[in-house]
Amino acid sequence: MELLKRTIGEVRHPDMAVEKEAREHLDLLTKPRGSLGRMEDLAAKYCLITGTARPTLGPKRICTFAGDHGVVGEGVSAYPAQVTQQMVHNMLGGGAAINVLARHVNADLVVVDVGVDDPLAGAKGLARRKVRSGTANIADGPAMDEKDAVAALEVGIDLALQASKEGIALLGAGEMGIGNTTSSSALFAALLPCDVERVTGRGTGIDDLALERKIAVIKRALAMNRDRLTDPLGILAALGGLEIAAIAGLVLGAASRRIPVVVDGFVSSAGALVACRMCDAARGYLFFSHRSAEVGHCAFFEIFGAKPILDLDMRLGEGSGAALAMSLVEAAVKIYNEMATFDAAGVSRRIG
Amino acid sequence: MELLKRTIGEVRHPDMAVEKEAREHLDLLTKPRGSLGRMEDLAAKYCLITGTARPTLGPKRICTFAGDHGVVGEGVSAYPAQVTQQMVHNMLGGGAAINVLARHVNADLVVVDVGVDDPLAGAKGLARRKVRSGTANIADGPAMDEKDAVAALEVGIDLALQASKEGIALLGAGEMGIGNTTSSSALFAALLPCDVERVTGRGTGIDDLALERKIAVIKRALAMNRDRLTDPLGILAALGGLEIAAIAGLVLGAASRRIPVVVDGFVSSAGALVACRMCDAARGYLFFSHRSAEVGHCAFFEIFGAKPILDLDMRLGEGSGAALAMSLVEAAVKIYNEMATFDAAGVSRRIG
Repeated sequence: MELLKRTIGEVRHPDMAVEKEAREHLDLLTKPRGSLGRMEDLAAKYCLITGTARPTLGPKRICTFAGDHGVVGEGVSAYPAQVTQQMVHNMLGGGAAINVLARHVNADLVVVDVGVDDPLAGAKGLARRKVRSGTANIADGPAMDEKDAVAALEVGIDLALQASKEGIALLGAGEMGIGNTTSSSALFAALLPCDVERVTGRGTGIDDLALERKIAVIKRALAMNRDRLTDPLGILAALGGLEIAAIAGLVLGAASRRIPVVVDGFVSSAGALVACRMCDAARGYLFFSHRSAEVGHCAFFEIFGAKPILDLDMRLGEGSGAALAMSLVEAAVKIYNEMATFDAAGVSRRIG
Repeated sequence: MELLKRTIGEVRHPDMAVEKEAREHLDLLTKPRGSLGRMEDLAAKYCLITGTARPTLGPKRICTFAGDHGVVGEGVSAYPAQVTQQMVHNMLGGGAAINVLARHVNADLVVVDVGVDDPLAGAKGLARRKVRSGTANIADGPAMDEKDAVAALEVGIDLALQASKEGIALLGAGEMGIGNTTSSSALFAALLPCDVERVTGRGTGIDDLALERKIAVIKRALAMNRDRLTDPLGILAALGGLEIAAIAGLVLGAASRRIPVVVDGFVSSAGALVACRMCDAARGYLFFSHRSAEVGHCAFFEIFGAKPILDLDMRLGEGSGAALAMSLVEAAVKIYNEMATFDAAGVSRRIG
């Protein structure tokens, strides 16, 4: 709890003067003013986050947190629970989508067991930070107690602080956990807040009947945990997942060290939302990578008031969208740093 | 004319059996079916274009064609005409946005003078393929005669054939030319076809008064050239630009050699449209990189029936959007080639 409290206390609202300076620099570059659109926004925000109008780039890292969900027993997922640990092995073997995309954008990938319901024996290269072996069924009571939620948050914080020490300049947040869109939808419903139907979708691909069941299960979870839904930590412990808590922690830790975090899709956004509800200033440190095909992601962006960078109809998780968007953020900073100015290049300015 | 005719004759409709095979392969990979959304579409299309379900990647090249426009004299641009040649020098010096982005995605950049109204003395590294020193004012008559239009088309074809010989696996098409959104809007109006107002925007950033003037100028151009607007080549010669013609040629040449082309923004789309109107099968070889902030681009996508990959509010041209999207196409093919299958990774399939 100490680390969590201290970290939240260290998150500062960014200095808006830096953004102004960054925008002025962007307007000196050889392009019509504003013509690089969102790329200019990304560059200015990177400056704002890192607190300097002379930004530097550095190594990128994606943290993919894995955890299991007791609610899978309710038949809310198209895949069996053991896929979580199987996919952890697949990631460590380099064969998952996130491995391909992390390599493509030249980011390193840290796969973190924060709550997988399996010892993951022989899993080489795994960051072993298990808090507990999966959550309890949220439809019957809390996912975990607050102590475990704090422990999972602090795993994420710790990874961010470690990244800061190692000079990581850009972090990506991703996850793997069968059943975790159910937990995320419950968190969105409680934290945005909004109707369950609006934030509940088909996850990895359930049919109409299972979707009805999923919505009913989430409503039961909200009702069963009603008394616990009084503050963000209580809500996280009641409805969350260990990997979601760790993402929230990663966001808080990164924000405390002014490292930008690129948030992946639906589930990672739930983690980011938890962080922002615990610490409003954390939102200034986030890039939202993409709009997931998972239907509730739209409601999140609308209510939370954020705009994703990409819209590619993806719904895989793992950090896959974050990887792609990290490359765009990096490209934006290169634009900022490497383009010639009108004066230096001897290019005429606009008429009038 | 011989090269143009022969090239068009060599463009084949892709073999749809390859797409089916590619989709089957994508469904074997360790992810929920379809969960990588448009990334899967990009991979399948890359297979379709290259004619194999075992696609290979290779070097990427962006061709940025530069040309001047006589219509600038009508006051349709926010920048003076000499910016075209100044920006060519800037690109050769490495300081333009396209240089930064081409480096970022590891593509080489070929800057081609196909119609700049300046000798470009001392411009090192320039591909010197000038057909004429800019177009005539389309508001007074044809931009060029058909012989020049064919010559510019053949410059593009030649660059595509050269790229094919050099083993280029993915081409990007970009442009630089003050005044060329005016020419592009006129081409869209004539070729889609649609109302001038729907496809005419602010280009590099003109005000309301100049926008009104621009629309009037385009209407005059369509009226003055009415008798010439009978076929795509006639329309291109009457309303087009030399760089736009060269992009159309690049598309045709690439399609004839089954090389995918990533089209940049508004102006490059006009070039791609010319190619598709000359040869319907060419459209199968195109990726549209992004939706430009230039207002008419939406109408193009709607009427032509295509969907851009990115939507980043960019309106710079040069190939800047193409560069970013080329990296996504490449990532999609890596996903296809490098991800593990369910069987190989020992991951359980979906329930039921």
